[in-house]
Parts: sequence; C-alpha cells; structure tokens
Amino acid sequence: MCRWLAYSGEPIQPARLILDTENSLVAQSLNSPLGAETVNGDGFGVGWYPAGASVGTEPWLFHSIEPAWHDENLRELTRAIESPLFFAHVRAAAGPPIQQTNCHPFRHENWLFMHNGGLAGFASVRRDLMLAIDESFFPLIRGTTDSEVLFYLALTLGLRDDPIAGMTKAIRKVEEVGHAHGVEFPMQGTVAVADGATVWAFRYSSAGRTRTLFHSVDMATLQQMYPDSERLQGFGRAARVIVSEPLTDMPGVFVEVPEATVAILDAGHYRHETFFAEPE
Amino acid sequence: MCRWLAYSGEPIQPARLILDTENSLVAQSLNSPLGAETVNGDGFGVGWYPAGASVGTEPWLFHSIEPAWHDENLRELTRAIESPLFFAHVRAAAGPPIQQTNCHPFRHENWLFMHNGGLAGFASVRRDLMLAIDESFFPLIRGTTDSEVLFYLALTLGLRDDPIAGMTKAIRKVEEVGHAHGVEFPMQGTVAVADGATVWAFRYSSAGRTRTLFHSVDMATLQQMYPDSERLQGFGRAARVIVSEPLTDMPGVFVEVPEATVAILDAGHYRHETFFAEPE
Amino acid sequence: MCRWLAYSGEPIQPARLILDTENSLVAQSLNSPLGAETVNGDGFGVGWYPAGASVGTEPWLFHSIEPAWHDENLRELTRAIESPLFFAHVRAAAGPPIQQTNCHPFRHENWLFMHNGGLAGFASVRRDLMLAIDESFFPLIRGTTDSEVLFYLALTLGLRDDPIAGMTKAIRKVEEVGHAHGVEFPMQGTVAVADGATVWAFRYSSAGRTRTLFHSVDMATLQQMYPDSERLQGFGRAARVIVSEPLTDMPGVFVEVPEATVAILDAGHYRHETFFAEPE
Amino acid sequence: MCRWLAYSGEPIQPARLILDTENSLVAQSLNSPLGAETVNGDGFGVGWYPAGASVGTEPWLFHSIEPAWHDENLRELTRAIESPLFFAHVRAAAGPPIQQTNCHPFRHENWLFMHNGGLAGFASVRRDLMLAIDESFFPLIRGTTDSEVLFYLALTLGLRDDPIAGMTKAIRKVEEVGHAHGVEFPMQGTVAVADGATVWAFRYSSAGRTRTLFHSVDMATLQQMYPDSERLQGFGRAARVIVSEPLTDMPGVFVEVPEATVAILDAGHYRHETFFAEPE
Repeated sequence: MCRWLAYSGEPIQPARLILDTENSLVAQSLNSPLGAETVNGDGFGVGWYPAGASVGTEPWLFHSIEPAWHDENLRELTRAIESPLFFAHVRAAAGPPIQQTNCHPFRHENWLFMHNGGLAGFASVRRDLMLAIDESFFPLIRGTTDSEVLFYLALTLGLRDDPIAGMTKAIRKVEEVGHAHGVEFPMQGTVAVADGATVWAFRYSSAGRTRTLFHSVDMATLQQMYPDSERLQGFGRAARVIVSEPLTDMPGVFVEVPEATVAILDAGHYRHETFFAEPE
Repeated sequence: MCRWLAYSGEPIQPARLILDTENSLVAQSLNSPLGAETVNGDGFGVGWYPAGASVGTEPWLFHSIEPAWHDENLRELTRAIESPLFFAHVRAAAGPPIQQTNCHPFRHENWLFMHNGGLAGFASVRRDLMLAIDESFFPLIRGTTDSEVLFYLALTLGLRDDPIAGMTKAIRKVEEVGHAHGVEFPMQGTVAVADGATVWAFRYSSAGRTRTLFHSVDMATLQQMYPDSERLQGFGRAARVIVSEPLTDMPGVFVEVPEATVAILDAGHYRHETFFAEPE
Repeated sequence: MCRWLAYSGEPIQPARLILDTENSLVAQSLNSPLGAETVNGDGFGVGWYPAGASVGTEPWLFHSIEPAWHDENLRELTRAIESPLFFAHVRAAAGPPIQQTNCHPFRHENWLFMHNGGLAGFASVRRDLMLAIDESFFPLIRGTTDSEVLFYLALTLGLRDDPIAGMTKAIRKVEEVGHAHGVEFPMQGTVAVADGATVWAFRYSSAGRTRTLFHSVDMATLQQMYPDSERLQGFGRAARVIVSEPLTDMPGVFVEVPEATVAILDAGHYRHETFFAEPE
Repeated sequence: MCRWLAYSGEPIQPARLILDTENSLVAQSLNSPLGAETVNGDGFGVGWYPAGASVGTEPWLFHSIEPAWHDENLRELTRAIESPLFFAHVRAAAGPPIQQTNCHPFRHENWLFMHNGGLAGFASVRRDLMLAIDESFFPLIRGTTDSEVLFYLALTLGLRDDPIAGMTKAIRKVEEVGHAHGVEFPMQGTVAVADGATVWAFRYSSAGRTRTLFHSVDMATLQQMYPDSERLQGFGRAARVIVSEPLTDMPGVFVEVPEATVAILDAGHYRHETFFAEPE
C-alpha cells in the first residue's frame, strides 16, 4: 500500500532517484502502475546515512504528512544532502490517522526499516503483537501502523544480531498470532532494512503473492549497455537501487526479486537467499 | 484542474454528496474519470450557508491543505452541519504553494466563488490583472491562484450587481490582458458563484473546449424514475446539484451544461443562458 | 500542561467562550496566567453535542495540530455551530509527537473526555496500563498520550455505568501501577467527562496539589450582580462553564473547585462530591 | 514580531545555535524576553549555504508552519547539515494566514533575506509597494507578508549591486508611500541580507525605536575570556552570530548594534556603518 526505494553506492543527492527519473518515487506517489493503490499521497519519508560516517552512525530522518508531489521541503532537502545509503517511502494509508509517526522509514539506533504491504486483520492482532514486543521497546512505539509494530517485533527477536533470522522470527510470530485470530494470510509485504552498511530487502507474503520488488543490475554493465544515457553515466560503479517498481522502463536495468526471497546488498554486490523456509 | 460541486435545496448534511455517493467528490479527489488530472489531492474546501438564514448572510468556510480522502475533520464537519446551499471543492494544483489561502471556495461578504480550470500564462498576466482589481479589494487577495484573482476582478466589475455581466466583463478582461501578452486562449474553466439564494454555474473557455459541467435534473422526476433508490428518495423535491462530473452513472440523473453557457439555479429551477457573447 | 473548558446550558456558539472573552481559551493558548506552561500551542480540539439531540447521541469533533490563536477554521467552526454542551482544549505537549490523535477531547460513543495534567513516568507505565485496557478498546487507541490511555482505562473500569466509580478505579490503577514502577505521585490532573447530558469535572492528584479548576456560578445571580454586562446578559439562565482558569477577572463569577473533588453539572445545577476516598 | 539569527564562520551544525544554547532561537520561539511578542510560534525557517560552495551558489531552504519548539524535522535537519553561513527565523504573525510562503528567510538566486518588524499600515500600502516592484519579480511574490514585498522592492532597487544602497532606496520608498497614505512611521525592523559570503544586518525604524539587534564579539577574545566554556571553545575562530537578542547572558559575549546602523560581517570581521542618512 506504499512505494519505496533504497539506494546504496557512491554518495548522491537523493533527488536524483526520488525526483529526477522517469518513474521516480515522487512520480509513483501520483501514479504507480504496479502499486496496489495508484495514489500514494498520505505522507512520505526519507532516511539517510551521512557520507563518510563510521559504522553504527545513526541515520537522519525527514517525515511529512503532505503528499510528496508538491512538497517544497522535499525538493530542497534531497538536493541539499548527499548520502551513500538512503531510504525513501511514499505512503498510501488504508485510512486515518495520517501523522508523521506513521511515516516510514522508522529508525532505531543505526537501523532503518520500511515496509510496503500490511498485516491482515491488524486491529485484531495489534494487542497480541504489541505484547510480544520487548518492554524496553514498548515506549518507543509512537504511531498506529502495523509496520512499526513489525519493526519492533523484529528488533525484539534479534534483528540487530541477524537481520534475516530476526525478520524470520518476527514474521513467524505475525503468522502464529494471525492464525490464532482466524486470519488466513497474516503477512504481506516487501521490507527494507539497513544498518548503515548493508541493505536487506525481503519479499514475502503468507499467500505467496507479494507486492513487486526489483533491484537495479550491476552499474558497470548498465553503463556499457547504455553508453549514451547521461543519467546512467552519472552514477558511480557501486550505485544500486532496490525499488517497489522500476524507476525506468529501459530494458535490462531492473530485475525482479523473486517471491520468498531476501536480496542482500553489500558494497555494490547482491546476494539472493531464499527467505522464510517453513518453520521446522 | 480541480473538481467541485454546488448543492441547493432542502437543508442536508453535505456529507451525503461529498462522501456518501458512488462517485462522491471525495472519491473524485482520488480518481476523477473526467478530470484533466486524475488526482485532486492538493487541499480542499467547503463553503456553506446556514439553514434558515436571511438573504445577505455570510457563508462559513472550512479549508484544508490535506488531501480530502482521509481527512477526519471533513468527515465530522460535513455530518455535523446541515445546509440548504453549499459549495465543495477538491484541488489539483499545477504546483506549489499548497496553502489554505489557495483553497476554494473563496468568500466575499455573502458571495461564494469556486473554479475549475485556469488562466493560461498566469505568471505573465498576474500583475496586469491584479492592477485591474479595485484598490479596496487588493488587500484581500491572500493566495497565489488565478481563481482568486478572477473572483476579485469579477467583484470589481460588478459581480454583486449582476453576476452574469460581472463574469462577462471579468473574462473579457482576462482575454484582453492575455492576448496583450501573447496568450492565445487565456480563459479556461467552469465557475460557480452564489449569493446565498441563487447559484450561477458558468462553462466557458477561450478555445471553446471547457472542462465538463453537469447538473442533476428535477428531483421529482428522478424519484419517479428510480422508485427503489433509497438515496434518491431521501432528498427533498428542491434538491439540485451542479458538478464537474456526475456523482453516479445512473442514466438520466445528470445532464451536461453546454459549452459557453451559464446555468442559473434558483429555488429548485434551472435556467440556461448563452454565456459570453462576442464583445460588441 | 493544557487548558480546557466545558460548557453546558442553552445552545450557544462556542466562539463566545473560546474566542470572545477577556481571558478566552484561545487567549490562554498564548498566555495562561495559571497554567503550568504559559504557552498551549501544540494543537487544540473541540467536541460538541448537537442542539436538540436525544440522549446517547455521539458528539462531533474537530482536532488540529496548529496553534489555536491564528487558526481560521476554528474561528469559522465555532461561530457556524451552536451547541448546548461542548468541550474545548488547547494543548501544551511535553514533547513530540504533535498529531491530531493526541488532541483532546477524546470520544467514545456518546462520551467525551479531556484532561489537563499528566501521568508521571508515563513511558515506564504505559505498557502495563495499556494491558489493563479491555481488548475490545485496545485497537481504538490511536495516539501516544497518557490522557487517551486514562480514558480507555476508565471505560474499561466502568466509566459508562458510573463515571465517578470508573474514574476512581482508573486512578487507583494508575497509582498502583505507578507505585510498582517507583513513581511517587503517579496521577496529576483535572479531567472532564460528559455523556451528552451531564458533565463531571474531576480535580485530583496523588500529591494533593492539582492544577487549578474553576466553575462559573449561577447565571441568574451573575446577571443580577452585573446588570450592565452585555456579555453576561446575553447568556441563558442555565449557562455554566467549567474551566482550567477563569475566563474573566470580574469578581464573583468563578469559584474554585477544591482539591480531591468532583463537580457534577446537570441541567444548570452543580453538586460537589469528595473524590477519590482512600482505597478501602 | 519575530526572532532571527544569522551565523557566519567555520561550518557548523545549525542546531548548535538554533537548539543547543541557553536562550537558543527555539527557546526564544516559546519565550523571547526582548521580543515585541513573547511567543513566536507561527512557523519558522532555515536558509543555509552549503560548505565549500563557490560564490553565487544558491542557498537551501526549509520552511514549516508548525511551531519550532517540538518540530522533529527541524531537530534532524539542523544536525544533519553543516553550513558556514545560515539564517534561522521564528515567526510571530500579526494574524493569519500562517503558510510556508510567509516563512522567512526568503531567497532569490544566491540571496537570503529575513526581517523582524513590520511595515505599518501594510494593508493600505501593499498595492502601491507591489506596483513599485519590477515586473519580472512580480510573479515571484507568493505570500502575504510585508517582509517579502520589502525584499523584492530592495531587489528592484539594486540590492544585488549594492545591498546598502538597495535597502536605503527600498526603505525610502516604504516611507514615501507610507507617508502618502498617512502612516506616520512606516518602517520598523531589523533585516538580515546575505549573498553567500557577506552578511548585512540592518537596524532601522522610522520612529527611531527599532527592535533589538546584537552580534557576538570576536571569538578568539571570547575563548580567552571564558577558557572553561566548552561550548565557546568548540567554535572556530571565525564564528560570528548576529541575533535579535542574545543567545546567552554571559557578560561580554554580545554587543548591541546601535539604532540606524548596518553591521557588515565579512570573513570574521564586523564593520558598522550609519544606515539611512536622511534623504538629500
């Protein structure tokens, strides 16, 4: 019910991906061809790690409840900064409240988290899931979204030590609680997690039909494929972007991340792993 | 670049037309099939005359820069009040600024005004048009829209004495100034004006291809046509609505107002007049 | 950390108390002489029952995160409506988030609730208090305030059957949980509750030093005392207002509600009862 | 009717002056001891030049209509960036509209401008002053403030070629038009202007009683005076700040800029000049 992108590579102005491409994230906020909703106008957010920061540095956040498409602060900010790793998210809410505390990405220490999708029957499972969150995290929950609960659940279950294991346990918990409340397919979504160095992009849904997820291919290859594309030539060799839907329809730029997979992006290299094997 | 509706009839909760119909104004804010833009998410406004008010009573206004679709205050307000004559408008801005002073309807004394369309080349003609506005009105201009300038121009040129003559002169001025600045087709739009008793709905563009405009037909007729429609049976006999696009696709409910026409709605009766004959 | 007022009596435009008096609630939002904070600029809210409504009718709400002092919608709305029973609240937040879901009054069915004060050490007790809330109410909690939690706790503990007993049990729970977390004085505040007919105004704090609370005296008496006051003569005989601090410094208009007391306002009659006797 | 500060020196996080000092600008937004208004809660703005930028680089802007004191984006942004020259402003509006286009600082090309004070009788002189603005600037006026009009008037009258001459002519025009409309003391205020290298801070009012203006003294001297002040020791030798009112009450840190004076701050050096000699 949202659109997002995650960039990793040489430091760039986030506007280059958020605003200045064909099917940029802001263009998607008005009209997303592959989205469950066409319009993603219920606020947005950007989270970014500073250039040259050491491991463990906290990222910065900008959240707004305005639609992204005419927001002037977004235009200024995403040109004023440069970042080697940033997340951006435009929200399509199922309903009110529209408030900054419901805007992605969410942050905890040096971790960023964002989500496109939803926890089915969230009103009925919210209490049980919040109880499963560690007491120390409980006061940090500030919004009403399923996504924020999922983040703190994953933090509770070890995200910081092992993101894939943490997410696996969190989703297992979501499914267990959902099933206990009669929800057939509790989990739906693509999730991005970063620690400042690595990005993990998960695609999974209980029903096996998750919202789309793509990532760009190797930039050196792209630059050879499109020698005349000024835009592509302007990126560094390590530049990679993971997205809800392609930012361009130039053939060969984006590849789909398969269902039930996590794409791990580390220093310009991707690795795919099967995600969420059946509970033993 | 917007969608609007104007209601006149027995006092009703505005929510019945703004929220609770098939293709309600709020539904159109997310997806307007006949609009120049699909999304009208750049703020909204409601202006309403109180029930039982004497002629000359000032209407009330509610303006917001949030998209209408998830706005909770809009839901409360449009059920909390009842009004025999109200305007509602959802905005699709060509660009920033998104601010309450750019939200329609505009009010002056007992007059309401709203507009869907635009003055071509507005940046170049804005100064000359503002100079043509009476000095006493000048300090009242608070936003940056062409629509507000058109309103004060029409007030300057006699709207309050004769709405059709005032609008004619205002549009003539817009075309004259536009042509002087090399704009081929200066005026585009549908405009609604009310004084608390009568509604005037204008459809005119310099190029002869104005955004759509419709009004509902006689309610007694409709209630005979659709004896099983609870919604229609719930309206009073004087209920009439003028709209950018039909609120329903039930055949026969809405008729189109022709190009270069003003529809005058008075105590449950419509009259169409040719609008904007060539300047003599 | 806030200022509020509750009116009951003949239907009036809320603006008469919120905007048009010497030390009106909006004046207090900029400068409240008796407040714990001088400025109450972190949003506001109005909740009102419609005139002529039957018992059990839901009140309407208007919430905004803007400061009240220059809000144009507040000016419009509080003149456009008339109400025989309304609450208004201006907020001084201890910190972010500033969001509509944190604006008072809160509503559940035909009940309104607002609060000035705070639950000490709320971050540490929030989880235990939320667990004490009935599962059916849990999904309705949308903000991050202690006040909203107190409301749902009171609803859980019988507010709707017996408001005084419900509030007593809720505060007892707050103190019990607070003490268990090492908070010496868990409860602080004045609380207003209404069901559409009666207003209950509570003043209690664990430390015995609660924020101020006042109510106006009998209007017939006031009108005799001040025969030349146009403002007072304009009110009906049943008009009563309960406030965080007096709306005027005219002697004799307001009397203080004592510490550990609930003032019950019913059809123009007040009754004071000692509130919160020691747990047996 | 506002408070502002301008920093020039080694690049720093703006938060150090906007948030992290005793009487920081955000502290002043809630309570400004020397301000005409105590509360400056009607929006705020930051304008900053990037570190290492060449002459003529456009500064970036962040504007918000929320009060500064609890704004989370302000906290993030002013720590995420570093700037060698920035302006910050908290607004106390005389009335609505509260909108981003009324937030200072204003920008044109590489110029920043902000203002504390007002043009007396602005409603009556607005039209004549807007007519005195060059036609090419007219479409750029987006808000309703006297300050924005003063900026474009000064741009029209040569600000970019000679800031002091441009401001002199602009104020002369303001006084001439004001007097023609029967305004005795048309100009009031302190104004800051920057081009990316130099800051000009003007203090002038027609009545000779302008709002306060201060600047910090030589940082090397301050660091000798206060060897134990960690905060002062943390600044570079070129650090200078010009402010509506002192950020600290440590003796000797701030000196007042006299009435009818312009303080010119250039590469760590101040120069005072008499401003606005009588028209010849």
